[in-house]
Amino acid sequence: MLIVMHHSATDKDVEKVKNTIRDMGLKPVAIPGAERTAVGIIGNQSWIDDGPIRTLKGILEIIHVTKPYKLVSRDFHPSDSVIRLSRDVKIGGRSPFLIIAGPCAIESREQIFKTARFLKKLGVPVLRGGAYKPRTSPHSFQGLREVGIEILDEVRKEVGVLVATEVMSPEQVELTASRADILQIGARNMQNFDLLREVGRTKKPVILKRGLSATVEEWLASAEYILLEGNPDVILCERGIRTFETATRNTSDLSVIPLVAESCHLPVIFDPSHATGKRSLVSPLSLASVVVGAHGLMVEVHPDPEHALSDGPQSLTFKGFEKLKQQMDALLEFMKTKLADR
Amino acid sequence: MLIVMHHSATDKDVEKVKNTIRDMGLKPVAIPGAERTAVGIIGNQSWIDDGPIRTLKGILEIIHVTKPYKLVSRDFHPSDSVIRLSRDVKIGGRSPFLIIAGPCAIESREQIFKTARFLKKLGVPVLRGGAYKPRTSPHSFQGLREVGIEILDEVRKEVGVLVATEVMSPEQVELTASRADILQIGARNMQNFDLLREVGRTKKPVILKRGLSATVEEWLASAEYILLEGNPDVILCERGIRTFETATRNTSDLSVIPLVAESCHLPVIFDPSHATGKRSLVSPLSLASVVVGAHGLMVEVHPDPEHALSDGPQSLTFKGFEKLKQQMDALLEFMKTKLADR
Amino acid sequence: MLIVMHHSATDKDVEKVKNTIRDMGLKPVAIPGAERTAVGIIGNQSWIDDGPIRTLKGILEIIHVTKPYKLVSRDFHPSDSVIRLSRDVKIGGRSPFLIIAGPCAIESREQIFKTARFLKKLGVPVLRGGAYKPRTSPHSFQGLREVGIEILDEVRKEVGVLVATEVMSPEQVELTASRADILQIGARNMQNFDLLREVGRTKKPVILKRGLSATVEEWLASAEYILLEGNPDVILCERGIRTFETATRNTSDLSVIPLVAESCHLPVIFDPSHATGKRSLVSPLSLASVVVGAHGLMVEVHPDPEHALSDGPQSLTFKGFEKLKQQMDALLEFMKTKLADR
Amino acid sequence: MLIVMHHSATDKDVEKVKNTIRDMGLKPVAIPGAERTAVGIIGNQSWIDDGPIRTLKGILEIIHVTKPYKLVSRDFHPSDSVIRLSRDVKIGGRSPFLIIAGPCAIESREQIFKTARFLKKLGVPVLRGGAYKPRTSPHSFQGLREVGIEILDEVRKEVGVLVATEVMSPEQVELTASRADILQIGARNMQNFDLLREVGRTKKPVILKRGLSATVEEWLASAEYILLEGNPDVILCERGIRTFETATRNTSDLSVIPLVAESCHLPVIFDPSHATGKRSLVSPLSLASVVVGAHGLMVEVHPDPEHALSDGPQSLTFKGFEKLKQQMDALLEFMKTKLADR
Repeated sequence: MLIVMHHSATDKDVEKVKNTIRDMGLKPVAIPGAERTAVGIIGNQSWIDDGPIRTLKGILEIIHVTKPYKLVSRDFHPSDSVIRLSRDVKIGGRSPFLIIAGPCAIESREQIFKTARFLKKLGVPVLRGGAYKPRTSPHSFQGLREVGIEILDEVRKEVGVLVATEVMSPEQVELTASRADILQIGARNMQNFDLLREVGRTKKPVILKRGLSATVEEWLASAEYILLEGNPDVILCERGIRTFETATRNTSDLSVIPLVAESCHLPVIFDPSHATGKRSLVSPLSLASVVVGAHGLMVEVHPDPEHALSDGPQSLTFKGFEKLKQQMDALLEFMKTKLADR
Repeated sequence: MLIVMHHSATDKDVEKVKNTIRDMGLKPVAIPGAERTAVGIIGNQSWIDDGPIRTLKGILEIIHVTKPYKLVSRDFHPSDSVIRLSRDVKIGGRSPFLIIAGPCAIESREQIFKTARFLKKLGVPVLRGGAYKPRTSPHSFQGLREVGIEILDEVRKEVGVLVATEVMSPEQVELTASRADILQIGARNMQNFDLLREVGRTKKPVILKRGLSATVEEWLASAEYILLEGNPDVILCERGIRTFETATRNTSDLSVIPLVAESCHLPVIFDPSHATGKRSLVSPLSLASVVVGAHGLMVEVHPDPEHALSDGPQSLTFKGFEKLKQQMDALLEFMKTKLADR
Repeated sequence: MLIVMHHSATDKDVEKVKNTIRDMGLKPVAIPGAERTAVGIIGNQSWIDDGPIRTLKGILEIIHVTKPYKLVSRDFHPSDSVIRLSRDVKIGGRSPFLIIAGPCAIESREQIFKTARFLKKLGVPVLRGGAYKPRTSPHSFQGLREVGIEILDEVRKEVGVLVATEVMSPEQVELTASRADILQIGARNMQNFDLLREVGRTKKPVILKRGLSATVEEWLASAEYILLEGNPDVILCERGIRTFETATRNTSDLSVIPLVAESCHLPVIFDPSHATGKRSLVSPLSLASVVVGAHGLMVEVHPDPEHALSDGPQSLTFKGFEKLKQQMDALLEFMKTKLADR
Repeated sequence: MLIVMHHSATDKDVEKVKNTIRDMGLKPVAIPGAERTAVGIIGNQSWIDDGPIRTLKGILEIIHVTKPYKLVSRDFHPSDSVIRLSRDVKIGGRSPFLIIAGPCAIESREQIFKTARFLKKLGVPVLRGGAYKPRTSPHSFQGLREVGIEILDEVRKEVGVLVATEVMSPEQVELTASRADILQIGARNMQNFDLLREVGRTKKPVILKRGLSATVEEWLASAEYILLEGNPDVILCERGIRTFETATRNTSDLSVIPLVAESCHLPVIFDPSHATGKRSLVSPLSLASVVVGAHGLMVEVHPDPEHALSDGPQSLTFKGFEKLKQQMDALLEFMKTKLADR
C-alpha cells in the first residue's frame, strides 16, 4: 500500500501517517520525491484495511497495489523520469538519445584509453567497460577487478568521458561508486537483492539489466528494490532473453521497450550486443531500438575484437561503430522531425 | 546432396545424372530454376559418395549439405528472390515494401468489403482474412470456411485487391488456390508436412509463418518442403515465438529478419499483431521491422475491433492503421534516401 | 456451454433441448455417453444466457465453461475413462499398465517382424512403428508410407500384436484406420485441427501427443476436438517439451501426468524416448512415469539402433528393453501391493 | 587446464609445477584432495601449450578441458562424492536417501520448534528454513534475517536436528556458517559468483540450486566455483526450470538427475515444492525422484500451510508429509532390494 501525500502536506502530517502505520504493526517507509511525498508500507503480505489511515490529514490518495512494485509505476510518478548523469548529460523523457559504448571487459590501459579517445571524438558521452566480470566458468578471465576500476578512474579524468561499470557484489559497491559515474547490475544479478539494496543506498545512477528469464514484472520489482532505498535513478536495460532459439545468443525482446514505457516512468535502453551475440545483427537491432522508443543504447565496441578476452564475436570494430553512429544520428534526426508526434 | 548443372547443360545431361542417382539406389528430384537447373537427392540419411556422379557431363558443382535444407539457401540461389504477386505487385529484393492488412477472420461480406475498400483507398495492395480458422478450442468460432473463401473471391474481383488467406489442410488447397492470390500456412501448421507439399504443388505464392517454437533452421527446412515440390514462391513470416514471458502474447524475434537474410534468399515479412497481441505495440514494432530489413508487413485491421470474433485486442482500428501507414511511408522514404547503403 | 441430461431423460427431451438451442441461433451437438447424455453448444464466442433452456425437461445441470474444453473434463465425466484396445487389452483407470514399444520408423518387413516377435514373447501387447514420418527436413527419410502400413497389417495378423502408427494428414486416416489398431497424432500435429476432426470420425483409439510448446490447456482442447466428433477413445501422451535446455532432446515434464489426471478423465502415457533423446535416460524416466501415475509407456526399441534410419540414439536395444521390462514389472507389482492407497 | 599429480608427488613437486605455471604468465591454483592433488590453471582464455609442464616430476596426467568446469567432473574424480553432514549423516554414493524438510520461511520460534520436533520424531535428519528470503518484490515478507538465524541455532541445539538455510549475500555467510550445518544457494543466486566464492571458503556443505533458466553446464560450472575455493562439499538441487508452461510453477526436469550423475560425482537432490508449486503434485514427484536416482529430497512442510507467510500452496501439511515419508521408505526399501542392480 502506498499513501501519497498532498503537495501541501507538512512534515508533521507525514510523521502522523508513519506512526499510525507503526501502530498497525506495519513498517512505514517515507519516499521523498520532487513531485510529492509518499509513504509506503512494506512487509505486508495481504490486503491492509486502510480505515485508520484514510481519515488522516494531508493525504491525496491511497493506492492499494497488487503488483509487486509501486514506486517505479506511473501510478505513483506519471511523468517520465529524467536522470542526470553529469552537468550536460541526461537520459529519459525528451533528453537526447544516449549512447554508451566500449569493450565488454577492461583488458589494459592502452585498450581503454584508445577506445575512450575514439568515442570522445565521435561525441559518445559514456564509456562502458567491465572490471568485475561475471563469467559462467571460474576458469575464464574474471576481469582486472580493482585494477580495472582504477584504470576507469584514470580514463574518465584524463579523457573526460563518463564511465559505466558493473558491480557483482555488495562489497564492490563503495569503491566502484567512488570511481565510476554509473553502476551496472548484470542480468545474472537482477535478483541479487542485497546488491540491489546496496546500489540503492548510493547516489549513482544504476543500469539494471533484465535477467535472462525475468518477466517484465520481476524486472520492475527489482528496480523497486533500488528506488525503495532512496535512489530514484534507475535505467532499465533490455539485453535479450533466454529461449529455445540458439541461432542467436539470446532473443531480443524489443516489444518490452514500449510496453514498459506504458506503466513505468524509468528510461529504458537496449543492449544489442548481448541480445544478439552476433556482430552483423548489432546495427539493424540498434536502429530498431530507436524506432520502438528506447532512450539509449549500450553497445560493445573493441579496438581489436578478434583478440578480445571476452565477447569478441559480438563487438563492433571502430569502423563498424562509426558507421552505426552515423546511421543512428540520421535516424534520430528523422524521428524528431518526421515521427515527432508518435 | 545437390547437383547444380551448368547453364549450358542439356536435358540429356540432366537425365544422365538422374539415372546415375537411381542406380545408386537413391531418388533424384529435378529442380528447374530461372538461373540454373539442379538435381537433388532425397531420402538419404548419411553422407553419399559422389564418385559415380562427379565425372558426368554438365555439372557445375556438387553441394554436400549438412543443413536440413538446400534450395532455400543462398548457396544454391545467391541473389534475393523476387516474387511476383500480380502484374504490378512484387515482394523481395529491392521491390517496394509490401503491406498486407485485414481482419483476423472473415466475419461477413460487409466487414470484408468495408475493409477492402478502405485499404484500396490507402494504396494497400493485399487484403488478408481468414476463412479457415485454426482455433485452440473447438468451442470457438471456426471461421466461415468455404463461404468465407467465396466472399474473398467476390471482394478481389469487385474491389480489385489481392487476397491472402490461410489453408489448414491439404483438401482445402485446391479450392482456395483457385480463389485466392496468396496462400498462408499458419504457425501451428509450419510442420504439417503434407500441407506444405500440397501448397508446393500449386503455383500460388505461399506465406509460411514461423512455428511457435520453431528454430530458424526448422523454419527454413519447412520452406524447403514447398520449394522441393516445385513452388519457389515462399514468403517467410516472423510472428513471434513462445517464451516464458506472458506480458505479450508472443515474443517478437526481430533479429531473425536480418539473420535469415544472411543465409536465405526468400523475402521475410513480420506480423506485429500476433507477435505482440497488444494494439499499442503494433505500430512501434511495425516500424522496427522496416528498419531491420523486412520486405513487408502483415497486420490485423478491423472496422470494429471491439466486436471482432477473434483477435480484437490486437487489431488496429482504421484510424490507427491510417496513422501507421503514414509513418511507414515516411520511414521507408527515409530509409531509401538516407540509409540506402545499409 | 454444456447441458447435461438426467439419466432418465428421453430422446424427446434431448431433441427439445437441441431445437431450443437452434432457435437461439446456436449449434447443438449431442454427445451420447455411457453415464449420461449431454448436449454441447459450439461456436459461441461469449457467455450465453441459459434462460430459454433452464426450464426444459430432463436437464440435470447446465455447465458454463470458461475453459476451452468440456468433454475431456472430469466435470462432465467424473470417473476415469477406460479404453478398450482389443478383447483383452485395455488402458485407463485400474487397467494394467500398458507398454507400447517398437522402432521409430518401419524400415523393412524383417525389422518389424523381428521386433514384433520379440515383444510378443515378452508379453508386450502393442507394437509401434511409423509408416508416415514427419521429418524436419524433406531430405531425410520420409517413411515407407503406404508400404509401411501394409507391413504393419501383415505383422498384426501373423504375429498377433496390436499396432499403433502415426497419421500426418486427413487423407491418410481412412487407409490407416482400416489396418492399424491405434492411430497416433504426433507432437507437430497436435493443433492440426482438420486431422483431429478426421480421427475423431473413426472408431479407433487415438494417441494424442503433446505439442512441443503446448500448454496443458491447449493439449486438452485438442483432445476435445476428437471427442466432439464422436470418438471418446483418446490416450494423451507426454513426450517432453521444448525449453532452453539442450542437454536433453526435450525436457520431460512428468508433473503433467498427475496434473492432467486431476481435471481430465482420459488415460495419460509417457514417451521417454522423445522426451529425453538419450538411451541412458530412457529407463530411469520410464520407471518414474510409473510412480507418478502414468497409465502406460510408449518406448522406442530397435533390433539394431546403430543402423536405425531415425532416432537411433534414443532407441533401446532388445537387451536393454528386456531389462527395463523386468524392472517395470517389479515396480508395478510393488506399486499395486505397497503403494495401493496412493 | 588441470595438472593431476601422482599420489606419491611431494610438496616440492607441486610447488615446482606452480612456479612453472607462473613463469608462463598464468595463475596456478592448488586443489588438495583426498584421492590426489591437482593444480588448476585459471584465467586462461584459450588452449595452453603444456610443453614446459609436461616434463616436470610427479605428474600423473594433464587434462585439457573444453568444458567450463573441471573439478566437478568424473574425469577428475571418478567415484561418487560422499558428503558428511554430521557424525551420523551422510549424502551421496550409497549413503541412505536424505530427506531435508521444513517451512519455506522461519516465521516464529513456535513454528520452527513444532516442525523440528515433528521431523525429529519421524527420523528426518535435516530441518530447512529460510531466514534471509529472496523475494521478487521488496513489498513482500523478507524473512526474519539474523533473528531467524538465531532461532535456527536454538532449534538445532535443543531438538538435535541439523539445519540448512539460505545465504543471499557474501556478508551473511560468516554468521550463517557459524550457526547452520548446511548453507543453501538459491536459484536466483546460482550465478552470484562472489557468493559462490564466499561459501567456497567455508567448511560447510553447500546446497546449490539450479537457476531458473540455467543449463546443466552452467549449473556444474557454478559448482566448480565453490570447489575451486577449496570446499568440495556441494550438493546439487534440481528445483524446476522456467518454461512457457504456467500450469505448474516451474517445470520439473527429472531427467537431469541421472544425466548429471553420468558426468559429475556430486550428489543431486530434488525440491518438488518449488518445482511444482502445487501441494497435490509434491508426493508423486518426490517418489519419482527416488526412482531416477536422486540422493535426497528437500521438501516444504508447514504446521499450518494456509497461514504461511510464503509458499503456502506448495507446502505439505504434517499429515501429508507423514504419508509421503511412509511411501518413500517403502519405495526406498523396494529399490534397494529389488532394483539394486540398476
